[in-house]
Amino acid sequence: MTYKQEQLSEEKVFKDPVHRYVHVRDRVIWDLIATPEFQRLRRIKQLGTTNLTFHGAEHSRFNHSLGVYEIVRRIISVFEDRPHWNKEERLLCLCAALLHDLGHGPFSHSFEKVFKLDHEIFTQKIITGDTEINRVLEKVEKGFSQKVADVIAKTYQDKLVVSLISSQIDADRMDYLIRDAYFTGVSYGHFDMERIMRVMRPMEDQVVIKSTGMHAVEDYIMSRYQMYWQVYFHPVTRSAEVILSKILHRAKDLFEADDFTFKLEPTHFLSFFRGDVRLEEYLKLDESIVYYYFQAWQDEDDVILKDLCERFMNRRLFKYVEFNPNLQMKDWMELYTLFQQADINPEYYLVVDSSSDLPYDFYRPGEEEERLPIHLLMPDRSLKELSRHSDIVEAISGKKRTDHKLYFPKDRIEALTDQSLKKKIITILYGQGEVEDVR
Amino acid sequence: MTYKQEQLSEEKVFKDPVHRYVHVRDRVIWDLIATPEFQRLRRIKQLGTTNLTFHGAEHSRFNHSLGVYEIVRRIISVFEDRPHWNKEERLLCLCAALLHDLGHGPFSHSFEKVFKLDHEIFTQKIITGDTEINRVLEKVEKGFSQKVADVIAKTYQDKLVVSLISSQIDADRMDYLIRDAYFTGVSYGHFDMERIMRVMRPMEDQVVIKSTGMHAVEDYIMSRYQMYWQVYFHPVTRSAEVILSKILHRAKDLFEADDFTFKLEPTHFLSFFRGDVRLEEYLKLDESIVYYYFQAWQDEDDVILKDLCERFMNRRLFKYVEFNPNLQMKDWMELYTLFQQADINPEYYLVVDSSSDLPYDFYRPGEEEERLPIHLLMPDRSLKELSRHSDIVEAISGKKRTDHKLYFPKDRIEALTDQSLKKKIITILYGQGEVEDVR
Amino acid sequence: MTYKQEQLSEEKVFKDPVHRYVHVRDRVIWDLIATPEFQRLRRIKQLGTTNLTFHGAEHSRFNHSLGVYEIVRRIISVFEDRPHWNKEERLLCLCAALLHDLGHGPFSHSFEKVFKLDHEIFTQKIITGDTEINRVLEKVEKGFSQKVADVIAKTYQDKLVVSLISSQIDADRMDYLIRDAYFTGVSYGHFDMERIMRVMRPMEDQVVIKSTGMHAVEDYIMSRYQMYWQVYFHPVTRSAEVILSKILHRAKDLFEADDFTFKLEPTHFLSFFRGDVRLEEYLKLDESIVYYYFQAWQDEDDVILKDLCERFMNRRLFKYVEFNPNLQMKDWMELYTLFQQADINPEYYLVVDSSSDLPYDFYRPGEEEERLPIHLLMPDRSLKELSRHSDIVEAISGKKRTDHKLYFPKDRIEALTDQSLKKKIITILYGQGEVEDVR
Amino acid sequence: MTYKQEQLSEEKVFKDPVHRYVHVRDRVIWDLIATPEFQRLRRIKQLGTTNLTFHGAEHSRFNHSLGVYEIVRRIISVFEDRPHWNKEERLLCLCAALLHDLGHGPFSHSFEKVFKLDHEIFTQKIITGDTEINRVLEKVEKGFSQKVADVIAKTYQDKLVVSLISSQIDADRMDYLIRDAYFTGVSYGHFDMERIMRVMRPMEDQVVIKSTGMHAVEDYIMSRYQMYWQVYFHPVTRSAEVILSKILHRAKDLFEADDFTFKLEPTHFLSFFRGDVRLEEYLKLDESIVYYYFQAWQDEDDVILKDLCERFMNRRLFKYVEFNPNLQMKDWMELYTLFQQADINPEYYLVVDSSSDLPYDFYRPGEEEERLPIHLLMPDRSLKELSRHSDIVEAISGKKRTDHKLYFPKDRIEALTDQSLKKKIITILYGQGEVEDVR
Repeated sequence: MTYKQEQLSEEKVFKDPVHRYVHVRDRVIWDLIATPEFQRLRRIKQLGTTNLTFHGAEHSRFNHSLGVYEIVRRIISVFEDRPHWNKEERLLCLCAALLHDLGHGPFSHSFEKVFKLDHEIFTQKIITGDTEINRVLEKVEKGFSQKVADVIAKTYQDKLVVSLISSQIDADRMDYLIRDAYFTGVSYGHFDMERIMRVMRPMEDQVVIKSTGMHAVEDYIMSRYQMYWQVYFHPVTRSAEVILSKILHRAKDLFEADDFTFKLEPTHFLSFFRGDVRLEEYLKLDESIVYYYFQAWQDEDDVILKDLCERFMNRRLFKYVEFNPNLQMKDWMELYTLFQQADINPEYYLVVDSSSDLPYDFYRPGEEEERLPIHLLMPDRSLKELSRHSDIVEAISGKKRTDHKLYFPKDRIEALTDQSLKKKIITILYGQGEVEDVR
Repeated sequence: MTYKQEQLSEEKVFKDPVHRYVHVRDRVIWDLIATPEFQRLRRIKQLGTTNLTFHGAEHSRFNHSLGVYEIVRRIISVFEDRPHWNKEERLLCLCAALLHDLGHGPFSHSFEKVFKLDHEIFTQKIITGDTEINRVLEKVEKGFSQKVADVIAKTYQDKLVVSLISSQIDADRMDYLIRDAYFTGVSYGHFDMERIMRVMRPMEDQVVIKSTGMHAVEDYIMSRYQMYWQVYFHPVTRSAEVILSKILHRAKDLFEADDFTFKLEPTHFLSFFRGDVRLEEYLKLDESIVYYYFQAWQDEDDVILKDLCERFMNRRLFKYVEFNPNLQMKDWMELYTLFQQADINPEYYLVVDSSSDLPYDFYRPGEEEERLPIHLLMPDRSLKELSRHSDIVEAISGKKRTDHKLYFPKDRIEALTDQSLKKKIITILYGQGEVEDVR
Repeated sequence: MTYKQEQLSEEKVFKDPVHRYVHVRDRVIWDLIATPEFQRLRRIKQLGTTNLTFHGAEHSRFNHSLGVYEIVRRIISVFEDRPHWNKEERLLCLCAALLHDLGHGPFSHSFEKVFKLDHEIFTQKIITGDTEINRVLEKVEKGFSQKVADVIAKTYQDKLVVSLISSQIDADRMDYLIRDAYFTGVSYGHFDMERIMRVMRPMEDQVVIKSTGMHAVEDYIMSRYQMYWQVYFHPVTRSAEVILSKILHRAKDLFEADDFTFKLEPTHFLSFFRGDVRLEEYLKLDESIVYYYFQAWQDEDDVILKDLCERFMNRRLFKYVEFNPNLQMKDWMELYTLFQQADINPEYYLVVDSSSDLPYDFYRPGEEEERLPIHLLMPDRSLKELSRHSDIVEAISGKKRTDHKLYFPKDRIEALTDQSLKKKIITILYGQGEVEDVR
Repeated sequence: MTYKQEQLSEEKVFKDPVHRYVHVRDRVIWDLIATPEFQRLRRIKQLGTTNLTFHGAEHSRFNHSLGVYEIVRRIISVFEDRPHWNKEERLLCLCAALLHDLGHGPFSHSFEKVFKLDHEIFTQKIITGDTEINRVLEKVEKGFSQKVADVIAKTYQDKLVVSLISSQIDADRMDYLIRDAYFTGVSYGHFDMERIMRVMRPMEDQVVIKSTGMHAVEDYIMSRYQMYWQVYFHPVTRSAEVILSKILHRAKDLFEADDFTFKLEPTHFLSFFRGDVRLEEYLKLDESIVYYYFQAWQDEDDVILKDLCERFMNRRLFKYVEFNPNLQMKDWMELYTLFQQADINPEYYLVVDSSSDLPYDFYRPGEEEERLPIHLLMPDRSLKELSRHSDIVEAISGKKRTDHKLYFPKDRIEALTDQSLKKKIITILYGQGEVEDVR
């Protein structure tokens, strides 16, 4: 038997709170899970700072990656006897599912923005570079790692395979919605995944949904919508992200400043500051390393870095007011000046943050690319794009919703001794609605 | 209104996957949660290395502490109108519930064993020492922090209050069984907590259970039993604990050795190695710091430290065989010598680990003290100890069960080139039953 | 203590799979539950024929009535300290909640349509007539039964009380959505009821929702939408309803016919056939009585009655095709004639059935009246109608969706021996889409 | 393709709240479900009178029968590639699973006791007699119906097949424990069925359990124990059963009396009274027929029959005291005489009822026969009986527990005007403990 076909002598299972069990039969999958690059995902939270809002959301990307693998495994087991399905692609699909998030680092969204990185490029590098992951994949057959990378990059020629991993209703999204709902404890995020799997049909270039399953898909779309606004874009989480970004900015600025020396040499961050991150360095930076530095930076001499790190570690977050960039730029400019007068650096302490999504074309934090639309398979075997058949989806699709908030340290404002300055600031802030306490 | 009585203007809630919502009305509780000492619990996993076995078990002690608080809050809200209940103790109970695990460090069990520490002493120190926690508590009234410490230490004079927090059926155990079951995803750990709360009655010196609720308590006892053997003592988790302990031992030995210098000065560990840990240093050591060092130590010059850290980080665990210390000491001594011959240091690579529990008198890892037995309140108002009324509990109570396993690196044995030596080792190991692959 | 204030010596609870426990403290509530008129609800299924589609849906109206009571009890316990809430109305609310469905008979929808009845009128009669229910209520205070009847009839002067029981987001709807989802096993129907209860606020003339809870309400609206189309209007259920209605029609026709004598005198139905149903007779007709007759009628001499009853009892339902009344009336007329030629009486065997709903203004089967819209309480204390604030609700509100299906006995068509006739019928039917097998 | 092998063109599913979906592929199974004899199970509650205690328990035997079928289907799909498993037995197993409860009538337990019937004999008759069920089975192959009957009767030669359907851990018990827990809403009854299925192994003459799954089996045994005492033997349910039995007794006595004529001829009961029930008559008697008569009998002239029926229909149950037959026979005899003096016929109104079970050898109501013990498959391939390996099971196994209660109409006693007589009765009753209100 070749390595590609090798089965474990006894099926292995992982107890999973979401899918009950994750089943592994293939030696290749078992070996991939055992690599350091994959085990590293245990040290990166699936939802970054969300646990500061929903304390249950402490689950890792390891957790989610197994889940996506399991969903694809189940879908394929149903596809096996269907036309259009090429059995040869089975292992490729499973590997791509398992490894699709491999390149995520800690707090991806903020790191990517501040350091201009792209986790997808690192996923590619880990799969095709000098890694254990790569060695396992190449044992399957020469060039197999590139195939896996192609599927994840959506450039693989068999688009049916690609659509299992990345489309508007792929295994990735189905797993994270249900999983994130489970761990946060919110009641959104439930939909009938088993039914959706039952009505999925392979076609030449994509997975489609039998039209009798349309209502289950509607339910999935609504879950997605609710999870975005209720969980992923929660203002408390955003507040933590704002502070996190500002910490990274400040550290980089200090590193670039001539007159500042870190007490603790930021070894793990140097290549990030310089903008030439190599794979080896990237893989070393997990969440615990970041926390280590943030703890240490509380003792650095820079007051801004100290303060921001202390806020992040102890959850002393910024408060916010709703902000309308079209109407309130003048307010913002005034506040900017007033903050300067109050000796509160507005570059770090007066931050506009925006969240936006397109229902039925949502973007997940950090995933700006477009995904394939959902097609229904009608009784007459024709295909129909979902929003042309579903009133509900039609009603919400394409309507982009954007939300802007202005974040600031309420405690600093309240502590101002210059009463006139304090009053001015508060008037502008409160003039645009009550200050919302985070949580 | 005094600080003690101060209520938040609007009730705050935490979404909790186990109790649905955790409700906070008291300003004191809100302020305690916001302290750095309490926020630090977010960076310490509730179940240490269990997530290497059950990947969902990534929840923190922060999570559990809120849960215990919530259970006590609900119990008290039922007690309010009952005889024996002193309403004055309400806030004290809530604080003790919230803070009972405050002194836990990362991987408590191993750290305590290797460095001879006691997390309960640190809980006391955090509550009564120079901390924000202490400052909040003393604002309630002078001496309040000591009261809270006394309740947790079980020395408080009102034993009814103590029994809410520490007994064989206290809020702590009820929360962790249900919570750990939820996050691991196992089906054990379910029992009817709501029913148990309904049949709890305050008496002079303890909480008792109305006898009509006996079956719910039996179910709770069985859940506990199953969780211990299925989750808490799982051999894969034990394997990780074995390696973790050996890492700490090795680092300490190297620190004490004259001829070894760490490339990375183990700043955070120095006081642990020296045996004079001060509160400030203790509070700095959270799980991310430990992971930081374990990552770094993979690059140290000592092969044992390197190897063990690499195993821990990448989950390359030891395998095990069942071991009977009464019958197999000779085997063990032989193996010890053979391992030495094979140049595999048996002090670090041949480890007997024992788990034991007394059903209906279980000890949780790291909690060796006795807890109060459970009393039933009979229809005639008399009290009866549970095992005298329940056939099931009677049947299992007092029967201590102990389980010994011998852990070793199977990969190292298999890689031996001296075939005769290899065969000898394998014969002894396999002679005592098949080697179990961890997972 | 007056009867009105009388509390049970110990709280009683009902174990409820949906709300965990239903709590009863008031003697009045306990006594109402024990009346024959309320116990009768155990013999009437909540969802009529739905169990023929979703076999789990065998729960009774007794079940649901307790649930509505429990929800109102919980809402009120939160309202107690709020402005606008009149504590004097507590017992009235609980009674109205418990009794709101008291007048339902078996398979209400079909019975009401065929015999031109209104279950709401019977609810009024049971509460104010010569019943045990009435006697219990009048013990509370003279005229209390009329108050309860008024709340249910929505004519009570305190509109806040009315809106708890009947509005677009009342206790009735919240209970049935969650309960029906639980028993059918579908994954729709979940929403965060606990959150909705937390954000409900009493106002002068209605219950409103704090705007921060809008997303939970959106989720509830979507659940409702899904439950209607996925469960309540399921074509298999509709098929059974069609047959049931035709049985009742046929029995009435036979009763009115000069030349037919029932073997079994239809004692329980006589007043229904005659159109002068008195309360006493109405109360006697529960589901088991209906089944008794349907079993017996399988032995009557009329072939149509026999056949329809046999179909209903043994679930040999009609099949259906989609039907567009605007375009296909000619088809229908042709089929009518062809059915006559085939000796299949089209009055009973060729039935158009329509379902329609207004999302965010749904009608429940048998409840044609309008319910109050949902108002959000904005941060500035103003009120805003839900659809003016929620994009999602705005998108779907007011868009009435109607669905028509043509039902017929496929087995009879297939058994036709006249091949030409058979072909004609099949061509028309199949011409308008594939025949859907029920289930 | 033969009928035996015929597959449905598209898999059919039933939405099931317990197993999510019940899957049907075989034409034979589909046809069996559609028979009148199987559809009749919709009109017979799984738990008889239990819904008077747990209002959610209104589910039918139809519900459970589908569940047992689904469990067997899943077990077999795992067995397919294993040694010892004869693929030829697949359809036989599925049919036996689906049909194993076919002979149950309404309130089986009471009917069987009073009329000396055995539902298992009727199951045999329905399968092998002149029924649609039989015709479907015989289409599979001549003699197939007898095979199915043999499996259910445990006389089939392949004991492996028998043990799937009837053993101490068969599909029947697994389904009813989980299902009854779901519908009642109790928290007992949960165990990890999926894990148990994974560790089941076919052997020559039985299904055994891999020893690694022992804890899951322990959990199942404990669930069973709890369900028996908490649900199946609940004293309120027993009270309803006592009354039900007495109704049947009374009706039979009246039928046999010379001087009594029923206003409503008890047509459906005649053969039961006479003791010569034929299959056709048996099949006609479902729960709705029984309720029809019980409603009607409230208007008969016999005061005892009237009263008992009125109690049953309106849930005015008997109360009870604990009763020790060894010590209290004299009490009972005294009460008997006092009841006679009070004109309360003790034959109908003073009833001792006993429940007993052998944990890990439980009997289900009406199932007195023995079932096969559970064997564990040890790592060395030997078999070990469960209680010899599990401390917990050993502790409780073989210990028969019996519980006796004395039921009586408390309302009648309280209404006595002869104060001396009343006092005597109450003294004896209350002397043996407080009277428990049912619920």
